[in-house]
Amino acid sequence: MSKVHLAKGMRDLLPHQMIHRQRVISTIQEVFTRYGFEPMETPAMERIETLTGKYGDEGDKLIFKVLKRGAGEARGECDQALRYDLTVPLARVVAMNPGLPMPFKRSQIQPVWRADRPQRGRFREFYQCDVDTVGAPCGLADAECLAVFHDCMVALGFDRFVIRVNDRRLLAALAAAIGAADRELAMITAIDKLDKIGREGVNGELRKRDFSEAQIAALWGYLDGDPVPGAEEAEETLDEVIGLAHALGVSPERIRRDRTLARGLDYYTGPVFETELIGAGMGSVGGGGRYDGLIGMFSGRQIPAVGISLGLERLFVIMEERGMVPPSTTTTRVWVTVFSDETRDASLAAVTALRAAGIPAQISLTAGKLGKQIKAAHKRGVRFVVVIGPDERAADRLLLKDMHSGDQALLSLDEVIARTASDG
Amino acid sequence: MSKVHLAKGMRDLLPHQMIHRQRVISTIQEVFTRYGFEPMETPAMERIETLTGKYGDEGDKLIFKVLKRGAGEARGECDQALRYDLTVPLARVVAMNPGLPMPFKRSQIQPVWRADRPQRGRFREFYQCDVDTVGAPCGLADAECLAVFHDCMVALGFDRFVIRVNDRRLLAALAAAIGAADRELAMITAIDKLDKIGREGVNGELRKRDFSEAQIAALWGYLDGDPVPGAEEAEETLDEVIGLAHALGVSPERIRRDRTLARGLDYYTGPVFETELIGAGMGSVGGGGRYDGLIGMFSGRQIPAVGISLGLERLFVIMEERGMVPPSTTTTRVWVTVFSDETRDASLAAVTALRAAGIPAQISLTAGKLGKQIKAAHKRGVRFVVVIGPDERAADRLLLKDMHSGDQALLSLDEVIARTASDG
Repeated sequence: MSKVHLAKGMRDLLPHQMIHRQRVISTIQEVFTRYGFEPMETPAMERIETLTGKYGDEGDKLIFKVLKRGAGEARGECDQALRYDLTVPLARVVAMNPGLPMPFKRSQIQPVWRADRPQRGRFREFYQCDVDTVGAPCGLADAECLAVFHDCMVALGFDRFVIRVNDRRLLAALAAAIGAADRELAMITAIDKLDKIGREGVNGELRKRDFSEAQIAALWGYLDGDPVPGAEEAEETLDEVIGLAHALGVSPERIRRDRTLARGLDYYTGPVFETELIGAGMGSVGGGGRYDGLIGMFSGRQIPAVGISLGLERLFVIMEERGMVPPSTTTTRVWVTVFSDETRDASLAAVTALRAAGIPAQISLTAGKLGKQIKAAHKRGVRFVVVIGPDERAADRLLLKDMHSGDQALLSLDEVIARTASDG
Repeated sequence: MSKVHLAKGMRDLLPHQMIHRQRVISTIQEVFTRYGFEPMETPAMERIETLTGKYGDEGDKLIFKVLKRGAGEARGECDQALRYDLTVPLARVVAMNPGLPMPFKRSQIQPVWRADRPQRGRFREFYQCDVDTVGAPCGLADAECLAVFHDCMVALGFDRFVIRVNDRRLLAALAAAIGAADRELAMITAIDKLDKIGREGVNGELRKRDFSEAQIAALWGYLDGDPVPGAEEAEETLDEVIGLAHALGVSPERIRRDRTLARGLDYYTGPVFETELIGAGMGSVGGGGRYDGLIGMFSGRQIPAVGISLGLERLFVIMEERGMVPPSTTTTRVWVTVFSDETRDASLAAVTALRAAGIPAQISLTAGKLGKQIKAAHKRGVRFVVVIGPDERAADRLLLKDMHSGDQALLSLDEVIARTASDG
């Protein structure tokens, strides 16, 4: 007997968890489809050079590498790695498929893997839900991203959320304005940590990176609202995107301009977005932005792109905390008991007819007392139980018990099907 | 600019492929649910020792290992590996969760990874669709597996298929009967290749493993139908399972007893099954069986189990060859064009109203001539196109074009929603 453990940072999703997750995922997928994003999947493994150099140095360290099999294995050779996000694989797909009709709008819902230190609620495998529009200039495509964020939150049942927006060009102009154009990424990386480490923490990061006190003071002036010289185009872009988002049904109070929003990833070039649930104390549940340079790293052609990613895992945690999960813990509607060997044929016929009618149904697989069988159904949260004893069998009737209401009735098979088919 | 390649044996699934795949997967999932199998997922990575020693020596060689990050990486250390099938992870889950209500019926649809040599139609990442029943004795649970095979094939639109059944205990008795009880697994491994290498090939394999000509001749006598001494219990089990499958709605001509059916995996202990499409020249599209010892390898407690796995990739290939794919190549129902800057507000209002009604709709994201926009919709296979020029805008009407029939009509927004909402 071997010791039994999960791999580090991994977890199983048991049926009662899956039912909630599948419902959330299909809600999000429905919103993605409504906006005309078409489904796509990419493989779990990519060539290492496809992934490295896209996520910053800290990201590169978290990429899982897969050992070659065969002769290369003994030498510890690796040329493949696990998907780290869904954006870089999209850029590769676009570069490899020049015939894709543009603009190309795709949705993708798949797990990604990161060798982060596991913590409560943070796993090394987690799902991302992304939509991206490739080949459309800045404007309406960006506004659709905000509208998708909005509609997903509403469809999931959240009413208190805000979508923060900023523009990377505004941060670039800001870096130039404080005389730190050469340290723009260092500045962005520091600002990006504001939520976690606060103002003083950011200042410490900036000092470590040789920003002067005068620069730091000027920076906060701009972050708090001073007009940033050279940021006019970025400001106009944000005006346009926010205006279009309103036209797409996003109410103004849902959107907040926030110059401290940086988004850590290297590849953003224009507007950036982040969705936050108010009062959840959770950080963002989704983010994204425009990355007009990334696809060019693969294809040599500059192709503009914008997209967002929803983080499922945080949404699940919050929905569970707030009791927003469906009450059902099973997909089974009816449990057909087996009274005795003599009546088993009738139970088999009943479960087969229920299934043929599309009603999820179980039949007791192990012999046992009727009370124990009913308990098994109840324990799993199955709503309806069917009993067919010798009397019922002789009368061609079934006893249907509704475990929610406690009601029971002697019915024909057709009546049982009609009664259990709907949620009525 | 980096060179752009997929990793070896990997592939992308573009939207036109995904639409077919999602339909097939949801059809299979619906059958699984109808039989009361509840959804479950396990992580992509397992500890190496969880996987090794379960799939035979050849299987072990095909397991992908993942390199440790941090200090272990430089030393080439590995302690995790990628999921190779869905059965061994299930056994681990059952061992780790002694509180699971038994019998435990779960479905699982996830990719697995095998370092096989890539070939046309064979990839190193592919989806498996599994159902398993844990904790039920041989009989009805096994029959349900046959019924699930049957219903999946029917639901997918196949009418010519056969489910072959055999029992590992029958093969064990057969090995004993020819005086090769000590080489049972070698015998099974050879017989398992019959489909690929034919009788002479199997004989060659057996000779390599020191089976005598007399043993080989006796073997074929038994495989062709001679009563096997000591196989009475296995034969009775098969009678019972097939009888119960009939009661669950599987017609007798769909099931064929076949003593040459071996199923290569080490862990089977009782009935084994395989589904084959007649005339597809493809081998099996699914298989499974009873494995009463596997969970005990993890938990120390013997827990009986039976299950099947459907191979999606072969099903897709056959369905594409036979033209069984849905005609639609897009999930978008309506494309709203933008006639000019002056009418854009009306187009934005139209696409927003369509989406709010749950109708998947796109709006042209790039300025361009109307003809080009309509062509873009047509190229993607979108059925309906909406045009709002200055006259339509003034009259508060939309021009709706049905790209299938060629019809067009001037309608109110509500009428457009009603017309495009259903498949009528």
